[in-house]
Amino acid sequence: MSQPYLPIEPRGARRVGVVAKRGSRQAAELAGELLEWLGRREIETLVDPATAEGIHELSQGSAPPFELLTPGALCDLIVVLGGDGTLLAVARKAAGGPPILGVNLGRLGFLTEVSRNALYPALVEVLAGRYALEPRSLFEIEQVRRAPGEGERTQFRALNDVVIAKSALSRVIELSLSVDGRHVARYRADGLVVSTPTGSTAYNLSAGGPILHPLLPVAVITPICPHTLTLRPLVVPDSSVVEIVIEARYDEIADRVDRVYLTVDGQEGSDVAVGDRVRVTRSPQPVYLVRTGERGSIFDGLRAKLHWGE
Amino acid sequence: MSQPYLPIEPRGARRVGVVAKRGSRQAAELAGELLEWLGRREIETLVDPATAEGIHELSQGSAPPFELLTPGALCDLIVVLGGDGTLLAVARKAAGGPPILGVNLGRLGFLTEVSRNALYPALVEVLAGRYALEPRSLFEIEQVRRAPGEGERTQFRALNDVVIAKSALSRVIELSLSVDGRHVARYRADGLVVSTPTGSTAYNLSAGGPILHPLLPVAVITPICPHTLTLRPLVVPDSSVVEIVIEARYDEIADRVDRVYLTVDGQEGSDVAVGDRVRVTRSPQPVYLVRTGERGSIFDGLRAKLHWGE
Amino acid sequence: MSQPYLPIEPRGARRVGVVAKRGSRQAAELAGELLEWLGRREIETLVDPATAEGIHELSQGSAPPFELLTPGALCDLIVVLGGDGTLLAVARKAAGGPPILGVNLGRLGFLTEVSRNALYPALVEVLAGRYALEPRSLFEIEQVRRAPGEGERTQFRALNDVVIAKSALSRVIELSLSVDGRHVARYRADGLVVSTPTGSTAYNLSAGGPILHPLLPVAVITPICPHTLTLRPLVVPDSSVVEIVIEARYDEIADRVDRVYLTVDGQEGSDVAVGDRVRVTRSPQPVYLVRTGERGSIFDGLRAKLHWGE
Amino acid sequence: MSQPYLPIEPRGARRVGVVAKRGSRQAAELAGELLEWLGRREIETLVDPATAEGIHELSQGSAPPFELLTPGALCDLIVVLGGDGTLLAVARKAAGGPPILGVNLGRLGFLTEVSRNALYPALVEVLAGRYALEPRSLFEIEQVRRAPGEGERTQFRALNDVVIAKSALSRVIELSLSVDGRHVARYRADGLVVSTPTGSTAYNLSAGGPILHPLLPVAVITPICPHTLTLRPLVVPDSSVVEIVIEARYDEIADRVDRVYLTVDGQEGSDVAVGDRVRVTRSPQPVYLVRTGERGSIFDGLRAKLHWGE
Repeated sequence: MSQPYLPIEPRGARRVGVVAKRGSRQAAELAGELLEWLGRREIETLVDPATAEGIHELSQGSAPPFELLTPGALCDLIVVLGGDGTLLAVARKAAGGPPILGVNLGRLGFLTEVSRNALYPALVEVLAGRYALEPRSLFEIEQVRRAPGEGERTQFRALNDVVIAKSALSRVIELSLSVDGRHVARYRADGLVVSTPTGSTAYNLSAGGPILHPLLPVAVITPICPHTLTLRPLVVPDSSVVEIVIEARYDEIADRVDRVYLTVDGQEGSDVAVGDRVRVTRSPQPVYLVRTGERGSIFDGLRAKLHWGE
Repeated sequence: MSQPYLPIEPRGARRVGVVAKRGSRQAAELAGELLEWLGRREIETLVDPATAEGIHELSQGSAPPFELLTPGALCDLIVVLGGDGTLLAVARKAAGGPPILGVNLGRLGFLTEVSRNALYPALVEVLAGRYALEPRSLFEIEQVRRAPGEGERTQFRALNDVVIAKSALSRVIELSLSVDGRHVARYRADGLVVSTPTGSTAYNLSAGGPILHPLLPVAVITPICPHTLTLRPLVVPDSSVVEIVIEARYDEIADRVDRVYLTVDGQEGSDVAVGDRVRVTRSPQPVYLVRTGERGSIFDGLRAKLHWGE
Repeated sequence: MSQPYLPIEPRGARRVGVVAKRGSRQAAELAGELLEWLGRREIETLVDPATAEGIHELSQGSAPPFELLTPGALCDLIVVLGGDGTLLAVARKAAGGPPILGVNLGRLGFLTEVSRNALYPALVEVLAGRYALEPRSLFEIEQVRRAPGEGERTQFRALNDVVIAKSALSRVIELSLSVDGRHVARYRADGLVVSTPTGSTAYNLSAGGPILHPLLPVAVITPICPHTLTLRPLVVPDSSVVEIVIEARYDEIADRVDRVYLTVDGQEGSDVAVGDRVRVTRSPQPVYLVRTGERGSIFDGLRAKLHWGE
Repeated sequence: MSQPYLPIEPRGARRVGVVAKRGSRQAAELAGELLEWLGRREIETLVDPATAEGIHELSQGSAPPFELLTPGALCDLIVVLGGDGTLLAVARKAAGGPPILGVNLGRLGFLTEVSRNALYPALVEVLAGRYALEPRSLFEIEQVRRAPGEGERTQFRALNDVVIAKSALSRVIELSLSVDGRHVARYRADGLVVSTPTGSTAYNLSAGGPILHPLLPVAVITPICPHTLTLRPLVVPDSSVVEIVIEARYDEIADRVDRVYLTVDGQEGSDVAVGDRVRVTRSPQPVYLVRTGERGSIFDGLRAKLHWGE
């Protein structure tokens, strides 16, 4: 959870980090091309280790060695080549660090700012200082285990959401939710999702939660397939301490290990046991997304992604 | 929309206004009793005209004349005897005015603070300064008519919500929603509800919207029975200008006048015509609700009202 | 509710009725063209009165007089030129009568079978006996008024649905639902919709109800914006007697006449008063829709209309 | 999937099977008591192996040996002591076999007919022939694996539902649904549930599906947290062949085994792989539930369980 990068504005950036989607040949190719483009402008570049490996494979070893984008490395801007998933993984590490410009290589994303064709024009704009920085809040998540003799704490960060849910083989779990130390309700459900405004269009939306304007100071807690039919999504201040305790799980399938899982951004996870507590708070530092002229309002994105126009 | 009462804190109140639920004998009786109780403590009282009439009817004319609680009258506190409906009607006029203490005579309410039995103990606490003031934001609503040669503007205020909806006999209407001048979507639906956090547990909840913590600086826009199945509740900053234009209505039933209505708090209404624009903004002044020790957290209220405990 | 047309199969039809969408110049033109096409094949034609008027207007009186398609007229097939709305109006009268071939002049419909371009090829197929008849069940609806001294009964028929709902200005109504004489629940809601399988993709879907395969022997009762959050759509045998009693309505807006309405297929309506009973049963005779080869399975229609492919 | 019991009507039953909830001391005690009660009436008894073990443990070995209720054993009636979960497990084996009388030892159930106190009066009624037999349809489920070189088929039966869902750690799966060989849609979702009418009040309801009258000849297919927001519950004839193919799963969490599971009645399960097909059809034989006078209409149960009365 250390903050790996120092925050510097991208205007007249001297050092730019590049991260390409893992396992994507297209992204690795574009990364190589982008590094050259930046080099020709005498901008220093850093490359994350997996991206460096991808480029080396592509070039069959002919690429030069790269300075690696590691926690603590200084840079002014990170360019992410991939989709929302790649950007999420970078953003969790970049809280309080350099702004991120997302380049969308496939389907339209909620987070990636520019399309592949618009990459270089957008970069010219950004380096010339014509951009806006949009702060997106993240969650700090702490799992406190109740296992005997332990008391282990595990920490996570999320840009989209934290989900606590039963495995497919158990029928229902029971969670107790409190906000700022005040009991809200017991949730008999498949689980629940606590989402940032940024994540409101992700899993929260599938579970029936509302769409939140991305800059609101709120979090939304949405039950997943609740047995208690009156449970509804609940929007609370993001300055709140949201705490979930796993009260019980119902093992109806004999001879199988039944499990509850915690997942952040659908990308990292952990087993959760009865009695464990999960605390969710807003990260003290946001991550900054670089916005250029290409993209319209957030509502344009919603209409396009959710087919509201039709 | 003038602000009828000057805001003065209820601590050591010298002048208290009393409003009883219209048409309720029980409320009028309690109002008479409360006026005596206040008089014995040398607190001046004001009574709203309908309540005064109710008390006079009960006493068959033997009650003394009352100083009337009219717009512009000075008082330090208003006590509302009734339910959430009575409190809503008072609150729309009390923005920027004296705090309101709600006394619930029937079913548990979301807004009324104390039960009938707890009225006098609560008043003793309030007069002694042991209370909190909870600011609840209201909406200012402006309907701009497009009727030829006119341009008439009508203004409303709402503590809970403003609903724009078709009449029962039309099949669907089409509304265009913008936020801060940016187009959001066209809504083919029965209508939509724009709700304050306070109103989120009212009509918004029935229409499928989320529950909002009452002190959040947000508004929620929820479609009513949308034909476009991807439309979802949308939470926006309450500093936004929400504008709705009535685009069309579909008159499938011949020989009947088809109508679209605007309703505030389910209590006041207006006809709306194709081409009319409705602008919703946050009122510059909130209304203050008096909270005493009796009531628990807002979550206790939700559990009780929504049967979350079961 | 008399059955206006005798049922005869369209194979080798000798008499065909034509109904065009009211007020549509395009539909009236196509109707004129179709009548000629049928005349050249020595098929007798009948024209519904409004369509006859539309054609006469278009031809400025030069069209010949038409035999009118009136209740009781004999014909083998009715061709409807318009959209689902026009077909609904014809279908309510055609229970037990001749099959209907719907021609869609505008947007894709759920009920209309062929597009404008496919009209004549489809008719050739139908007249040659290459078609299927799809029975769609209708509702018989009886409203029994409780007005003093009366006891008036009004009857309606519906192919899609019957909706009992509050007007826009009232806050909530209370309905009592029974099925086959057994009490189901009291509904505090904006209203409820009772839908046939055919109507399940219409208002029922907007209100949150399920999609029903069109040939199922069932009806679905779906609450509209229920205050009781646990109320859910309920699917019952269409052999049931569904009865709804209007228990109460809440007039929160003074000085306005508050109303409850009954609407069938979104096209015909009636005022409903407290104490009125509305009984819904399956019509003894279905209406038959003509299906030709053009159209795929019902699921193709759902995917196209609901954008399931995306 | 062999049918273990011959179907004989419980009137004047000579042989009664007894099944108690596993691991419940209360159920085992009641089973022992019931066996004595039946014995005194010269009714032969059979006991399922786990129940026999439970009684022997309780009696510390002093109980006599029991004739075991095994597949193929003849009996006229099975009495299940436990809750809906115990009854589900018995019912899956009893299709085409003896009727089941469910005795509810804890919370009110949807399936169990009588409360613990009403057990003996109800049995007297049943043995005297005063009861009704309610046929509940089951599903036959066949999983056809696509693993190379295999083609393995696994069969399941369900009284409530079959759920195909992702594990908690994967973000979304993609399923292709067809009904009677016709493509319906691709589901990008957490999964889907195919439910009998009996199961409609179980997981289907939590996932947003409708309540189905228990005797309808239908099945309902409900998406679980769909990404495609227009997907809705779909009710189809239970004579249909419902087929689901697992198209893809998205492994966003590296280094973890991602899984899709099939679960029947929340009690038995199986791993499912990409390319596997799952076919769901109605079982040729229903299971019969014994209904006595104690219980009211199915709507009484809904009101009680779902708190519709409040």
